[in-house]
Amino acid sequence: MRAHSSVRAFKPEALDPSRIRAAVSAAQMAATSSHVQSYALLQLTDRTVRARIAELSGNQAYVADCGAFFVVCGDMRRHRLIADRAGKRRTDNLETFLLAVIDASLFAQNLVLAFESDGLGICYIGGLRNELPTVDSVLGLPEGVLPFYGLCVGEPIDKPAVKPRLPVEAVWFRDHYPSDDEMLALVDAYDETMAAYYAGRGLAGRNWSGAIWRRFEAETRGHLAAYYGAKGAKLS
Amino acid sequence: MRAHSSVRAFKPEALDPSRIRAAVSAAQMAATSSHVQSYALLQLTDRTVRARIAELSGNQAYVADCGAFFVVCGDMRRHRLIADRAGKRRTDNLETFLLAVIDASLFAQNLVLAFESDGLGICYIGGLRNELPTVDSVLGLPEGVLPFYGLCVGEPIDKPAVKPRLPVEAVWFRDHYPSDDEMLALVDAYDETMAAYYAGRGLAGRNWSGAIWRRFEAETRGHLAAYYGAKGAKLS
Repeated sequence: MRAHSSVRAFKPEALDPSRIRAAVSAAQMAATSSHVQSYALLQLTDRTVRARIAELSGNQAYVADCGAFFVVCGDMRRHRLIADRAGKRRTDNLETFLLAVIDASLFAQNLVLAFESDGLGICYIGGLRNELPTVDSVLGLPEGVLPFYGLCVGEPIDKPAVKPRLPVEAVWFRDHYPSDDEMLALVDAYDETMAAYYAGRGLAGRNWSGAIWRRFEAETRGHLAAYYGAKGAKLS
Repeated sequence: MRAHSSVRAFKPEALDPSRIRAAVSAAQMAATSSHVQSYALLQLTDRTVRARIAELSGNQAYVADCGAFFVVCGDMRRHRLIADRAGKRRTDNLETFLLAVIDASLFAQNLVLAFESDGLGICYIGGLRNELPTVDSVLGLPEGVLPFYGLCVGEPIDKPAVKPRLPVEAVWFRDHYPSDDEMLALVDAYDETMAAYYAGRGLAGRNWSGAIWRRFEAETRGHLAAYYGAKGAKLS
């Protein structure tokens, strides 16, 4: 875990399916609420499709070039097939959407650690959500299958240095969330750490809190609620 | 990973803070979208508070009795303090809510594996969402801090057998999600596996698909959208 950094340069050889199967079956042992297992993992093997998804994900070429590329999905469809066959109603709301996001993410993080333990590098692709309706039309996902993010896996060519995280005190609290002044003091300390990290990579003058307010200043990915709603999720 | 099962009987001794710190700092190395680190971990140390949360989470006594109990939260507050201080606007939508759920869950699963690697047992507590507005009033969470689930950690007294998961073929697909008939055949095979598992635990006649349609037949936790909205999340 402590050695993790996101890899963005991979050898092009396709990943052996036996290594994928081993990682997936280990990852499935992640906890899942009421044993519902609301997730699905779609691997894309067609290089033309992957090149198109790479383009739609903010021109991240490694989506097309890495050893294996996956779309991590929430899965309400499997449950609906079961309910339909039994002649039962399936009710959805924000809770069942959350179940899918949480189940898929616990599974995904297990999967990532299984791959990393096997000597592989990984990169999550949040950029998959940049143009999700178009991604969906390329993938032809059925109703009830909700793509959340991509995942690149492969033999790393280049592994970046580990990036410092927030001080533990800014994340783990006992009984009370810190006061605003306490939290901002922790952010200031972290800004110094990150400024040194960035300066070491030739990015003088950059820090964390500046990147944060810039990230959230303008709206991004404003289509998600309409998209997931059209795929059968309920967000109310 | 393969040895995981959820523990619900723990020794009562409080977990040493040095073991928590080690697990949290390793868990923080989980990937995080644009390095935003949208999560917070609130440990509850007051036994009276924990007894109340245990009751509100469906009377799960181990919430009060385990070695350490945590509330895993999304954190938009830290970012808002930064934006406010810089005089910048923070925009929220379903994307920024998803970032918080995903970041918190990748972190949480790392945390769980770090604790398990240290010989401890864990149990996620989705029941924390049963009565979230009341839980919130007990915890006094500030705006922008979004509780998603609880986490019990401690020395296990009793560790249940590992529970079989869906066949790998029901979860990992290449290029196309299976047809309805293919998926239902996989569900049928899994029902047999699970019926045998349950029968071995004295629960004859139980299977997975029956549990699934029952789980989703009636609405549960219908208050979540209003609750998270009131805490500052946007779901549109």
